[in-house]
Amino acid sequence: MKTAVFVEPGKVEARELPKATIKQPTDAVLRIVRACVCGSDLWWFRGISDRKHPSAVGHEAIGVVESVGDEVTHVKPGDFVIAPFTHGCGHCAACLAGFEGNCLNNHPDEMVGYQGEYLRFTNADWSLVKVPGQPSDYTDAQLNDLLTLSDVMATGYHAAATAEVKQGDTVVVMGDGAVGLCGVISAKLRGASRIIAMSRHADRQALAKEFGATDIIAERGDEAVKKVFELTDGKGADAVLECVGTEQSVDTAVKVGRPGAVVGRVGVPQKAEMNTNDLFWRNIGLRGGIASVTTYDREVLLDAVLNGQIHPGKVFTKRFDLDHVQAAYEAMDKREAIKSLLIIAD
Amino acid sequence: MKTAVFVEPGKVEARELPKATIKQPTDAVLRIVRACVCGSDLWWFRGISDRKHPSAVGHEAIGVVESVGDEVTHVKPGDFVIAPFTHGCGHCAACLAGFEGNCLNNHPDEMVGYQGEYLRFTNADWSLVKVPGQPSDYTDAQLNDLLTLSDVMATGYHAAATAEVKQGDTVVVMGDGAVGLCGVISAKLRGASRIIAMSRHADRQALAKEFGATDIIAERGDEAVKKVFELTDGKGADAVLECVGTEQSVDTAVKVGRPGAVVGRVGVPQKAEMNTNDLFWRNIGLRGGIASVTTYDREVLLDAVLNGQIHPGKVFTKRFDLDHVQAAYEAMDKREAIKSLLIIAD
Repeated sequence: MKTAVFVEPGKVEARELPKATIKQPTDAVLRIVRACVCGSDLWWFRGISDRKHPSAVGHEAIGVVESVGDEVTHVKPGDFVIAPFTHGCGHCAACLAGFEGNCLNNHPDEMVGYQGEYLRFTNADWSLVKVPGQPSDYTDAQLNDLLTLSDVMATGYHAAATAEVKQGDTVVVMGDGAVGLCGVISAKLRGASRIIAMSRHADRQALAKEFGATDIIAERGDEAVKKVFELTDGKGADAVLECVGTEQSVDTAVKVGRPGAVVGRVGVPQKAEMNTNDLFWRNIGLRGGIASVTTYDREVLLDAVLNGQIHPGKVFTKRFDLDHVQAAYEAMDKREAIKSLLIIAD
Repeated sequence: MKTAVFVEPGKVEARELPKATIKQPTDAVLRIVRACVCGSDLWWFRGISDRKHPSAVGHEAIGVVESVGDEVTHVKPGDFVIAPFTHGCGHCAACLAGFEGNCLNNHPDEMVGYQGEYLRFTNADWSLVKVPGQPSDYTDAQLNDLLTLSDVMATGYHAAATAEVKQGDTVVVMGDGAVGLCGVISAKLRGASRIIAMSRHADRQALAKEFGATDIIAERGDEAVKKVFELTDGKGADAVLECVGTEQSVDTAVKVGRPGAVVGRVGVPQKAEMNTNDLFWRNIGLRGGIASVTTYDREVLLDAVLNGQIHPGKVFTKRFDLDHVQAAYEAMDKREAIKSLLIIAD
């Protein structure tokens, strides 16, 4: 089977690997239809973080179940599914609490890559999200919407859920990447009446507005903080979505909320140490982490996509096939694409 | 009027000061019936934190309204009231969000002391909590219960509320001081089915159990963490109440929760810097700060005291009059009292 492989920093290529097979009774093998490149993939692509190489890459896909292990009963061969980047078992303390991103029975296998023709998917029974019908029943745009439910849309939703966005809230969204834009969609889906997006790129500002942003702030740092308080008559935001992870973004995020506001973080934090007294004395909460993909898809997001309420697939601004996976990565690396789509099969 | 005054580290005494008067139209003057000493008072008493001296001290009391400013309409002379340590205006962004501990219109006057015969109370209209009847209508124990609603009980409740304790939860409470014990009461009041109290003092363990603790852990640090996971079949707690503030206690608090658990902090943090990546990768939330005294009293706590559901006044294990205020502080300083009560008037 053909799969995208990380060769060395700055280089990925499609290679022929042995076809994925069932190894555990809780596995499924999927025939991948579409996959995509994540902002977090750029870390090892840029050589910022270490990753074993050569290794199969990617963690976002939709596909059709080809075969299942003996203990998989909730999906069967032929089912159209979303393949979350998370692999919740569904019965540990983390999964039962709705935090399957921290599943206690998940043993990640780094050699598994979603950017390929076939994928061995672990903890398949609970984790895979069944989509009605077959890929051919959906339009190109709908398939893109469904693909975002494997990670980016659910991750944006995790920011909004952990920031506890509720009806009528004023929300600040830090970050205009694909996750931040999905954060805007999520804030609106949860009933926010005002959504202030931090963005300095015209194309992303436009998409943020299309997704529900009511205000755009192009400033950064203390200027951005000042602007939020100006826009909110000195009150500050009820909830803050941190979808970047840089020190400056986190610092701004914890400053723009009103007392009692919660910052929901999904941007992987660049700096570990933080002055949490600043949070304490203003009653600012800090939550977030790895998204609950299966939970959000089942409870909220799949329905919202199927009934046309949200269109997160618009974050894919460039498309590639597997033979041009290097170009897909480069387009994101150079910020020429908000997010790169990989068409694997029909 | 006689009022407790901080003379120098290690020394407080009752002194005659000019009687409190209305200075702002939003003020009330209260005739204090009972007051008490807070763990946080020990900081300046011990010379750990700076405080202007001489200065009138104390921030917890119950009393009767003696006079009110022109803009105070919700309470009138003769009303029996709880005097929260917070002074919410009731109409700023913080107060409207239920976080009056961070009221944007509160201008603390350090010379105001609750441990005295009379108290000038700012932002009286919204902040004071009216109690039915008169002090003479209540038993000694009930008056003590009501007194805790000025700070300690509401602060324990803030830990539980910001830790988002809900029906059926397994809760860990860090700290067996008066606040921690009120945290146990609060966890039970919010429906926790299992409450694990960290305590190594027999008398406090007994009170924790009386208040609803189902398990006691005397260990500290990593041993305590291990014990929590043993007691919960490897799952960890659904919610954690941090009522100490020391580096060790906060460190333990963030380690004992299951993925997605929230730590509600009310212990004033000793160390500002924290590795928040440890929170992110386990989806552990961090909330808390200054309590919402008026809000909690009105919504939950006053009723719970009046109908006899909770008995937080049991944290007062020694009583004193104003002339022996030095002994009241020393009893807490030497851990001879869990909390010292000051009987000011009938």
